[in-house]
Amino acid sequence: MSIVRVHNFSISLDGFGTGEGQSRDAHFGHAGDRLHEWMFATRWWSADGNAGVDDAFVQRHDPGIGAEIMGAGKFGHPGWEDEPDWKGAWGANPPFHTPVYVLTRHTRPSIEMEGGTTFHFLDASPAEALAVAREAAGGSDVRIGGGAKIIRAFLAEGLIDHMHVAVVPILLGRGVRLWDGLEGLERTYRIESTASPSGVTHITFARTGA
Amino acid sequence: MSIVRVHNFSISLDGFGTGEGQSRDAHFGHAGDRLHEWMFATRWWSADGNAGVDDAFVQRHDPGIGAEIMGAGKFGHPGWEDEPDWKGAWGANPPFHTPVYVLTRHTRPSIEMEGGTTFHFLDASPAEALAVAREAAGGSDVRIGGGAKIIRAFLAEGLIDHMHVAVVPILLGRGVRLWDGLEGLERTYRIESTASPSGVTHITFARTGA
Repeated sequence: MSIVRVHNFSISLDGFGTGEGQSRDAHFGHAGDRLHEWMFATRWWSADGNAGVDDAFVQRHDPGIGAEIMGAGKFGHPGWEDEPDWKGAWGANPPFHTPVYVLTRHTRPSIEMEGGTTFHFLDASPAEALAVAREAAGGSDVRIGGGAKIIRAFLAEGLIDHMHVAVVPILLGRGVRLWDGLEGLERTYRIESTASPSGVTHITFARTGA
Repeated sequence: MSIVRVHNFSISLDGFGTGEGQSRDAHFGHAGDRLHEWMFATRWWSADGNAGVDDAFVQRHDPGIGAEIMGAGKFGHPGWEDEPDWKGAWGANPPFHTPVYVLTRHTRPSIEMEGGTTFHFLDASPAEALAVAREAAGGSDVRIGGGAKIIRAFLAEGLIDHMHVAVVPILLGRGVRLWDGLEGLERTYRIESTASPSGVTHITFARTGA
């Protein structure tokens, strides 16, 4: 059965998934690349990268995924809605390779990219967007790509089956928090922690069906 | 040389060291015992407890410590200042066995307990309190006992050399946060994460001397 998954979502020790001051040149604001260096160091990212537990986790990003849902802030910098030719922050061949549904109040025509990614723009609730993405995924799983606000919204509505969060040992102090308003989340998930030699702690949430 | 240490300080995945609604019957508010169950399950706590990595961490609480500094909220429930006979939330034989300096605006005469604990009451800044506790410790280390606000205040002033935080996989949603206002803390500490089979992740901070 098609499930809903989150992968490789990186937060600081103090819970921020994005820093402050996001812009075209700073996709994660003052966090810079610091939340994702562990990922860039894996074999998944480059041929001479490490092949340990960080790589084992990141490798699960793509298999079995038929569509992604992301927030407007993952698609582009604040203000992209006013740039009619903007095609997203992910280059000509984005790393999604499926239909991607961008949640935004400012919808525009779909954009077909290289490598199988097509961006669609939806003004919809989490549940409505999921119904559309599920249909497009044709029996495969749907990935919720982030940012923090989007994941939080899907968690709050009980729509996520599997989640992988990577906690990076830095303190950002400000930005967008992942965990706000999710009291008691542990009651419906089996939570497991795996520390990596890289310093990152991988936390997985597997829905228990309660 | 005498150093300043934090041990066994437990927080939820969303960073709360104490829940909301602290009272005489609920020392940690709505968190109840949930932040400390991992500790109660160790051999340190009871003879038939586990002897694995959780126990290895908790065992370091006492050796080499000559004094503790704690906040008013660790000493007792909100309002204890108005109860002249109140002797703290820690029983007749508190688990400190050294002088303990309680930071409060409402000072009172020192209280000698069984087992070597004496509570002293200080209206002082972190640096001032540390000077007093260091003197009392006579060359041994000083433990900063918490709660979250006190640890945060000592961290903000660069007064902590070694810190052990236990992250418990629950989401409290509300309470007192440990990490607020500590952006960049990782620059002066070597941070290490150790996942335990109990589900807790132990995070240690060792000052690098920068």
